[in-house]
Amino acid sequence: MGEEVRATANGVRSGRVVDGPTNPMVTPLLTDLYQFTMAYAYWKAGKHQERAVFDLFFRKNPFGGEYTIFAGLEECIRFIANFKITEEDISFLKQCLPPSCEDGFFDYLREVDCSDVEVYAISEGSVVFPKVPLLRVEGPIAVVQLLETPFVNLINYASLVTTNAARHRFVAGKSKTLLEFGLRRAQGPDGGIGASKYCYMGGFDATSNVAAGKLFGIPLRGTHSHAFVSSYMRSKSLHGIFGETNQSELAAFTSYALAFPTNFLALVDTYDVMRSGVPNFCAVALALHSLGYKAVGIRLDSGDLAYLSCEARKFFRSVEKELGINDFGKTIITASNDLNEETLDALNKQGHEVDAYGIGTYLVTCYAQAALGCVFKLVEINNQPRIKLSEDVSKVSIPCKKRSYRLYGKEGYPLLDIMIGENEPPPKVGERILCRHPFNESKRAHVVPQHVEELLKCYWPGLSGKQREELPPLEELRERCIKQLDQMRPDHMRRLNPTPYKVSVSTKLYDFIHFLWLNEAPVGELE
Amino acid sequence: MGEEVRATANGVRSGRVVDGPTNPMVTPLLTDLYQFTMAYAYWKAGKHQERAVFDLFFRKNPFGGEYTIFAGLEECIRFIANFKITEEDISFLKQCLPPSCEDGFFDYLREVDCSDVEVYAISEGSVVFPKVPLLRVEGPIAVVQLLETPFVNLINYASLVTTNAARHRFVAGKSKTLLEFGLRRAQGPDGGIGASKYCYMGGFDATSNVAAGKLFGIPLRGTHSHAFVSSYMRSKSLHGIFGETNQSELAAFTSYALAFPTNFLALVDTYDVMRSGVPNFCAVALALHSLGYKAVGIRLDSGDLAYLSCEARKFFRSVEKELGINDFGKTIITASNDLNEETLDALNKQGHEVDAYGIGTYLVTCYAQAALGCVFKLVEINNQPRIKLSEDVSKVSIPCKKRSYRLYGKEGYPLLDIMIGENEPPPKVGERILCRHPFNESKRAHVVPQHVEELLKCYWPGLSGKQREELPPLEELRERCIKQLDQMRPDHMRRLNPTPYKVSVSTKLYDFIHFLWLNEAPVGELE
Repeated sequence: MGEEVRATANGVRSGRVVDGPTNPMVTPLLTDLYQFTMAYAYWKAGKHQERAVFDLFFRKNPFGGEYTIFAGLEECIRFIANFKITEEDISFLKQCLPPSCEDGFFDYLREVDCSDVEVYAISEGSVVFPKVPLLRVEGPIAVVQLLETPFVNLINYASLVTTNAARHRFVAGKSKTLLEFGLRRAQGPDGGIGASKYCYMGGFDATSNVAAGKLFGIPLRGTHSHAFVSSYMRSKSLHGIFGETNQSELAAFTSYALAFPTNFLALVDTYDVMRSGVPNFCAVALALHSLGYKAVGIRLDSGDLAYLSCEARKFFRSVEKELGINDFGKTIITASNDLNEETLDALNKQGHEVDAYGIGTYLVTCYAQAALGCVFKLVEINNQPRIKLSEDVSKVSIPCKKRSYRLYGKEGYPLLDIMIGENEPPPKVGERILCRHPFNESKRAHVVPQHVEELLKCYWPGLSGKQREELPPLEELRERCIKQLDQMRPDHMRRLNPTPYKVSVSTKLYDFIHFLWLNEAPVGELE
Repeated sequence: MGEEVRATANGVRSGRVVDGPTNPMVTPLLTDLYQFTMAYAYWKAGKHQERAVFDLFFRKNPFGGEYTIFAGLEECIRFIANFKITEEDISFLKQCLPPSCEDGFFDYLREVDCSDVEVYAISEGSVVFPKVPLLRVEGPIAVVQLLETPFVNLINYASLVTTNAARHRFVAGKSKTLLEFGLRRAQGPDGGIGASKYCYMGGFDATSNVAAGKLFGIPLRGTHSHAFVSSYMRSKSLHGIFGETNQSELAAFTSYALAFPTNFLALVDTYDVMRSGVPNFCAVALALHSLGYKAVGIRLDSGDLAYLSCEARKFFRSVEKELGINDFGKTIITASNDLNEETLDALNKQGHEVDAYGIGTYLVTCYAQAALGCVFKLVEINNQPRIKLSEDVSKVSIPCKKRSYRLYGKEGYPLLDIMIGENEPPPKVGERILCRHPFNESKRAHVVPQHVEELLKCYWPGLSGKQREELPPLEELRERCIKQLDQMRPDHMRRLNPTPYKVSVSTKLYDFIHFLWLNEAPVGELE
């Protein structure tokens, strides 16, 4: 379904067809009612075509960290490329709005598409920071408002779970295999499908989710469950002759190996890991060996994973040594069971012999912080800058249509991001520039960049005639993400007390923000 | 899309068509790969048709509470009613599995449906408790295993968010209007759609999510955002003549009232609630009044909601009194801004004048606990009971194909739930029955029920010939949920230190569990 190509006139801009959103439920109605009531009020006031600029950004990095990975852009572009309010949707909207709403508005909605909307965005899979716009969306105010809710929905969770995956990769280390096993615990079906896609982008190696494998080409992994082992019962007639539990487990392993002689990986904790699971696994693995096959490994899903993995490794090494079976000591040990950043960190500290982790619940539901607070704020209308004030400084928005740049230092690390007004000259390599904290007068720094990267690129040109950036395949987004994370200065990335990455504005923008702020803010009266 | 009727041969059982899942991405591939590898191993061993019984249950109530609401059943039934592995899916599965897998297996998969599966479930919208099966699924082991992941996915989040909604309702009180505003912060598109549906089931009154309104008939609510207010700029020419910020807000309110004279509800915190928003609202409301319309109310989205709501109420009352406008003092005050159970509770303690709450992030992402740990355990195969052991007693499963009953006391409250073996005589009204804790020998109680309710009903009869329970409309599920919550003894429901509700087994089942446990568990050896 998600692969179906919805080639509307709108979706075929510049001769290229953009598929519809992965989830066909993502339609123009997947928005808040107030976007439609505002659209009506704008239309009624003759304001609906006024050109507005909105920034989509977040205010705080998740999980106590100092970085975020931006994800969800492709789904946003797929959405607007195929944006069309159907006749059925119009009928429904007529029921939702008061009967006094004029028919002309619905005629207008019938014609609405995103051909007049421009979307500038940071490349998906990039490392991003608070306050810097992930997207700048320009277009007729009524239309751009309709995009707010679906854009924020599509980006919020995507960026959150990609960041979570990247953090798990960071703790696990590069040499470990990371498997996403979260489908059953995800927040709904495409919570699961999205998790699989974005965890792969964030650095996981594979998923258990077959649908995600089909949709996105993500490598799939999985073997068997405890139920598979329990379903093989010991024969009543053998009761008392052989031992108790081992025999049904052995039967299950044998059966699984017969079905998958080249992919034998056994879950060894149904009864007792070291007294039953591992010896049974070895018995079957040795039988496979004598037939010319090589067993893959074991999975531990309970108990003290550090201890059990070390014991299992010892056992495998002794089998290698005693029976002279090459590489048997390297048999893969996979661990699962409610793993998260903390448990991975604890395993590292204890020492372990785990080669691969299967991670579910905590990863896909972003248990440690279940939401990223992305917002969508008006920064300009009819070429007039707008500011959103708040008594809480962290909630004041940065006005104006802006450009953003990432400045790199001598050692190749990004030094800071800077936002400037659209018509200001961009920072130049080798030229000193004063970078100001947007709200704190005393925080500023001179920077001489060795490399300057413009962050916002044109992903949907509207009528601007600009070149549209390609939407790269998932594999490429994953590579960008891994590469960008590698490029960061290590102190921004550490788990404990990471150094905040600096986000700044030009002096001109700083002055303008504070001029506008003073101008708009009411003067308090103490009584 | 979700309303489309997928009338496969399978979906038209007993002459009634069951629609497909709301999200068309819910297909047989939305499962873990290991369900297919196990299916192959079962098939290869000739075990795939063995009759298995699985229980779906959870182990612990969420949010520190002592109850859970069961939701997601209808989606499960829609899924199995239309279960069919397509030719395209088969091709994909062939690529995923090793080339050694035999063609006969794929021929088998082509024919698989759920006509031979039986599903017994507690009614959706019921109050439920740990360990008691929400679903009992019987059928050929290979098929039932394929259902595990989608069933758990469809029930986990649905039950979690319904429970969260019910808990918010409990704190807010019955007289308040509760609006779900979470779409933009939900975990993906159908995280949002699911949240809207299930929060309504759990006792919310309306949603902002237009797609959910269309799919499920949930009442819709919404007015305008801060951007709407900021988009109305003061005229430069009037600068200095009128005050500063008030005029653009007044223009925005006027414009909104012109568009929606019968539905004027204004967001009053863009500049300053008491010095700008509320007076501007009143100016427009009075103008509407003089034209024969009645303004609806205001929304507060920042600041001290308790204080501001009281101040706004005073202002409205003084307008009513001074200008003699009937009921103006009762103008509706809606509050939003990162509300959750704790903030609602704090508002209650402070005293406030809020009539309606708009709740988003914390509600829909279940921020306080982002996952419910539903599991799906094999309890019987070929009429032989199976137990899943674990070193952690709370993870030991209760074996056997079981029946469950809720026993009610004299005062009409449910006293406890009891599970018994399938062939045991059910508890009878007025007859004393000994109810045992499943794992703790010393915990037991005699109960004389005044009313006995069987919990598991047949929602998918398979070939059993049993009558199939109807899937009631959402409105009816919502009523059941509200009624069942009302019926609970208050000490189970309180937020602080609630009394656990008792879940028990019959003496016969207790003895059998412990017989099986001893039989299966390995005997430890201390060295």
